[in-house]
Amino acid sequence: MAQTRVGIIMGSQSDWPTMVEAADVLDELAIPYEARIVSAHRTPDRLWEYGKTAVDRGLHVIIAGAGGAAHLPGMMASKTRVPVIGVPVQTKALSGVDSLYSILQMPRGYPVATMAIGAAGAKNAGLMAAQILALHDPDVAARLDAWRAALSASIPEEPQRG
Amino acid sequence: MAQTRVGIIMGSQSDWPTMVEAADVLDELAIPYEARIVSAHRTPDRLWEYGKTAVDRGLHVIIAGAGGAAHLPGMMASKTRVPVIGVPVQTKALSGVDSLYSILQMPRGYPVATMAIGAAGAKNAGLMAAQILALHDPDVAARLDAWRAALSASIPEEPQRG
Amino acid sequence: MAQTRVGIIMGSQSDWPTMVEAADVLDELAIPYEARIVSAHRTPDRLWEYGKTAVDRGLHVIIAGAGGAAHLPGMMASKTRVPVIGVPVQTKALSGVDSLYSILQMPRGYPVATMAIGAAGAKNAGLMAAQILALHDPDVAARLDAWRAALSASIPEEPQRG
Amino acid sequence: MAQTRVGIIMGSQSDWPTMVEAADVLDELAIPYEARIVSAHRTPDRLWEYGKTAVDRGLHVIIAGAGGAAHLPGMMASKTRVPVIGVPVQTKALSGVDSLYSILQMPRGYPVATMAIGAAGAKNAGLMAAQILALHDPDVAARLDAWRAALSASIPEEPQRG
Amino acid sequence: MAQTRVGIIMGSQSDWPTMVEAADVLDELAIPYEARIVSAHRTPDRLWEYGKTAVDRGLHVIIAGAGGAAHLPGMMASKTRVPVIGVPVQTKALSGVDSLYSILQMPRGYPVATMAIGAAGAKNAGLMAAQILALHDPDVAARLDAWRAALSASIPEEPQRG
Amino acid sequence: MAQTRVGIIMGSQSDWPTMVEAADVLDELAIPYEARIVSAHRTPDRLWEYGKTAVDRGLHVIIAGAGGAAHLPGMMASKTRVPVIGVPVQTKALSGVDSLYSILQMPRGYPVATMAIGAAGAKNAGLMAAQILALHDPDVAARLDAWRAALSASIPEEPQRG
Amino acid sequence: MAQTRVGIIMGSQSDWPTMVEAADVLDELAIPYEARIVSAHRTPDRLWEYGKTAVDRGLHVIIAGAGGAAHLPGMMASKTRVPVIGVPVQTKALSGVDSLYSILQMPRGYPVATMAIGAAGAKNAGLMAAQILALHDPDVAARLDAWRAALSASIPEEPQRG
Amino acid sequence: MAQTRVGIIMGSQSDWPTMVEAADVLDELAIPYEARIVSAHRTPDRLWEYGKTAVDRGLHVIIAGAGGAAHLPGMMASKTRVPVIGVPVQTKALSGVDSLYSILQMPRGYPVATMAIGAAGAKNAGLMAAQILALHDPDVAARLDAWRAALSASIPEEPQRG
Repeated sequence: MAQTRVGIIMGSQSDWPTMVEAADVLDELAIPYEARIVSAHRTPDRLWEYGKTAVDRGLHVIIAGAGGAAHLPGMMASKTRVPVIGVPVQTKALSGVDSLYSILQMPRGYPVATMAIGAAGAKNAGLMAAQILALHDPDVAARLDAWRAALSASIPEEPQRG
Repeated sequence: MAQTRVGIIMGSQSDWPTMVEAADVLDELAIPYEARIVSAHRTPDRLWEYGKTAVDRGLHVIIAGAGGAAHLPGMMASKTRVPVIGVPVQTKALSGVDSLYSILQMPRGYPVATMAIGAAGAKNAGLMAAQILALHDPDVAARLDAWRAALSASIPEEPQRG
Repeated sequence: MAQTRVGIIMGSQSDWPTMVEAADVLDELAIPYEARIVSAHRTPDRLWEYGKTAVDRGLHVIIAGAGGAAHLPGMMASKTRVPVIGVPVQTKALSGVDSLYSILQMPRGYPVATMAIGAAGAKNAGLMAAQILALHDPDVAARLDAWRAALSASIPEEPQRG
Repeated sequence: MAQTRVGIIMGSQSDWPTMVEAADVLDELAIPYEARIVSAHRTPDRLWEYGKTAVDRGLHVIIAGAGGAAHLPGMMASKTRVPVIGVPVQTKALSGVDSLYSILQMPRGYPVATMAIGAAGAKNAGLMAAQILALHDPDVAARLDAWRAALSASIPEEPQRG
Repeated sequence: MAQTRVGIIMGSQSDWPTMVEAADVLDELAIPYEARIVSAHRTPDRLWEYGKTAVDRGLHVIIAGAGGAAHLPGMMASKTRVPVIGVPVQTKALSGVDSLYSILQMPRGYPVATMAIGAAGAKNAGLMAAQILALHDPDVAARLDAWRAALSASIPEEPQRG
Repeated sequence: MAQTRVGIIMGSQSDWPTMVEAADVLDELAIPYEARIVSAHRTPDRLWEYGKTAVDRGLHVIIAGAGGAAHLPGMMASKTRVPVIGVPVQTKALSGVDSLYSILQMPRGYPVATMAIGAAGAKNAGLMAAQILALHDPDVAARLDAWRAALSASIPEEPQRG
Repeated sequence: MAQTRVGIIMGSQSDWPTMVEAADVLDELAIPYEARIVSAHRTPDRLWEYGKTAVDRGLHVIIAGAGGAAHLPGMMASKTRVPVIGVPVQTKALSGVDSLYSILQMPRGYPVATMAIGAAGAKNAGLMAAQILALHDPDVAARLDAWRAALSASIPEEPQRG
Repeated sequence: MAQTRVGIIMGSQSDWPTMVEAADVLDELAIPYEARIVSAHRTPDRLWEYGKTAVDRGLHVIIAGAGGAAHLPGMMASKTRVPVIGVPVQTKALSGVDSLYSILQMPRGYPVATMAIGAAGAKNAGLMAAQILALHDPDVAARLDAWRAALSASIPEEPQRG
């Protein structure tokens, strides 16, 4: 069986309804992954450990979702050179703009590949992970190409007026 | 000589022109402090160490300034129960609103006492530190009361039309 | 019985559903407090009186919540050197950004320790009050350390997919 | 000589370059006024006194300019029923949006007649004062009508392409 | 019976649920008013007529509410020197910030006294109208003073925890 | 029967509830149109084809609605000189401000005639199309004049207080 | 000589440095135009007259630039069915977002074809005017096609690293 | 010599001062790249060609910078499954928030890995490219690890007080 190359981490259980879209699309593409709760503030040592072992454990992509003062993706990016994809979770008062700025505006040295706010961003995080794996995995590349072709083919010519 | 109760930390040398206002007002109030560069992303282990030893070293306030995806104040707040005062440093594209949201929007459990964006916020961070120390230090309280009285007394009745 | 060191004040009854989180966490930590309605605009003299007597009454922290043109925290900060923690209450049209700017952007001399917008900010205000009290109260410090440890321990390893 | 009906107040000397436009247009309209520095935070007792005596001193309009957490106009509006016109002074990090929200978003009971951000708002504050005085002063009404007619007449048909 | 000194105008029927608060508070203060629909875009000639006759009809205040590209208050201010109070009606996509900027940011010469976004702003528009009338009408002044005193007296000391 | 001069295109079926207002007002004005789903990202070749043939097919206006990173209107504007009217569809996290900026901020050379966010913008897109056709079609001009006159006539004098 | 089909209007002389880009590109395309100052607030009667005679004078496009509470484009759109293209002029405090919202957010019935903020928007307004004229003027169409082809051809393959 | 795996593309020459930071850091890491101007609007066919051949040409990462209605990164992401990293170039009126939203808010199916606004984002785009290459290139991994270690080591303990 294929090795787990993708880690999906999130700051709390409440992020799961957003992040599940990343998991679902990886399932569709038959890409194994692990899902973990890693809170930058409540479990910083878990974050440290996860980051320090990521290369050796063979992870190729870390998808990190968080909301508000969303420090998880950026702190993970400082602990490992495994590419980190950040998903800004939508928030109540500031609609996720707070999450977005906390994830996006990283200083020189520690990029986070930021996705759109909310569930669409989570799904695209899964797809970006697949695109990275596809660079060296022809099977993933083929499944991803088929997935994209099916998406294009699903668009009708005219809107349904019903 | 009095013990150092206040630590001023910042993410990089470029934050110093902002944070110097905190240092200056502490000097005016004869409150000793230390100033350190502690980068959440570039020196995370230094951050860990600083946070873990803060209580035992006798710190009573940590003033933390940072800009952009400003993770330093919040990460420090997760590592110690010493009160952390956050100063959002003004940034080029987003005027410090990115710094502000990254510092302010902390999740339940890990408060950061956020100040105004930029140098005014840094000065007020120094004063807030003094207000906390004054709760148990009558000398600081007296100097702070005098400082505040002088500020009020310095306001002229009418604007200078020159 | 322990002296009341914390005052929770708010601009109106409608702020209570937000501010109750500050009260609840102080209850959890067995820290006595008083709760008062003090409106900057409707009862300015009450604000004056509260501020002028705060030091002599032995208050160590004032938690002030307000929404819209939220003048209460800043005006209180001008009347006393007791540390004021501000909570921006979420509003209908502007989501609490109006409350935030009115509380945060204080001029040099009168800091307000600003918390996140809404109920999370109120809870963190209670915790920040506890952190300040803990500097000189070993019992509070011990209960706070336990509270923080329990929070960290409550985080499961993996998200519940149910 | 006519009684002084208009008070121009501002939070600090640094607001004068903005507020001078209010003074200048009142001069153009031969409307007497007084100009005072009244800081909500640094001289709150002066604010109290000014507000409490405004009706008895015969003031008909108070023009109040302030920046940042701009509490002066709203606090004055709570202390007197003399109409208060608020001018949001432009700020460095937030361009005066902080000033605007602090002045504009007053709760039910205490309106502030808010003008545009910056110097244009200050000039319009002077004109709004004149419009209020003109309701019962035919001389002011005549001068204001002439001023407005001159403004309209000054607009050329075509832009100067120089 | 007293002359009608206050006109409440609005861009469309859909603004009435907001503007009714202005009408209600004028009713409470026994100040007569008229309410009209005057659309800047759909009935510009009605706007012209209303503005040109406002002085002669004896109006002392025009309260104008509008949403979106809210041109009504500003266009009215260009047609008459009767003071215009603007109420930004909350909108769906932009929460009334569009209404606010269209009303507030008037060029030099034509002030609009802008109130808070939404129903609170409408109520305050009614009160500001009363404050202007009170300058020369001791009965209105007395009723307004009583109204304000009752508002202050209605604030309980402590929040209801129910 | 009249030739189809107006194309309504949109990025996905989910835009139809917004775009139907464009279709409806064109129906009211008896202006024939076609409605198509053309996704910039999912069916870029369809976009190319539509743009390249637009002039030859006799289209005089293309109404393009899209949300989020709304590339459809701008990409269409780069492929044809037929005027493109853009409708920013409201979005969940950013209320359509993302759609707006993506449509509005086109570089020199490729204008998109941007309408208000949401359904009002879609209706106005249909009307703007009619205004363009009316320049050379007296029947459309007459129907549009009647439509506008009816809109003006429909405004009652006073708000319904029911 | 060709009839003048395009009117460029603006709120004040200070808008000319922005609007000149519309004039310049029309000159490049040999499309005659007139340029006028028409202030919605200072010369409302001029606006009325311009709008009411636009159809009869044979105008096919009106380009209207304005800043702040930019009422000119929308008021013109209410007075004529000639298509109005709006250009939001950049402003000091709010960077033209005030201008944008005042122009864009028109109610159902009166569309304004809004361009990007500032000079790029002015240039594109000229091009959009040309695109509308090109629908029935093959010479304009040919010149516009050539202009667009030249723009595409001017792009080098690689950036100049100098 | 190593194959070129990284393409840096940008909408216009004016983006180069921003994008040069991506090129410079790739030079530091001895990673070959190509730099091209590919305008979504002015050279759409070049974009098509670049996207369609990206996989076959062996590209592993495409770094795309653009400003305003920044369609280049998203359109490229729709044409190829090679990972696209987007850099929002800062703009004059909207500070790059327009660029950001146009790049970030991609619909499900076509992720763009978005970096911070401006030059810091460009540098991080180069580093993210290196992180992706490092997954399968031990030499790049080693150089990147050294680069990161040097960055951490360069941070002094204390700020220079100048």
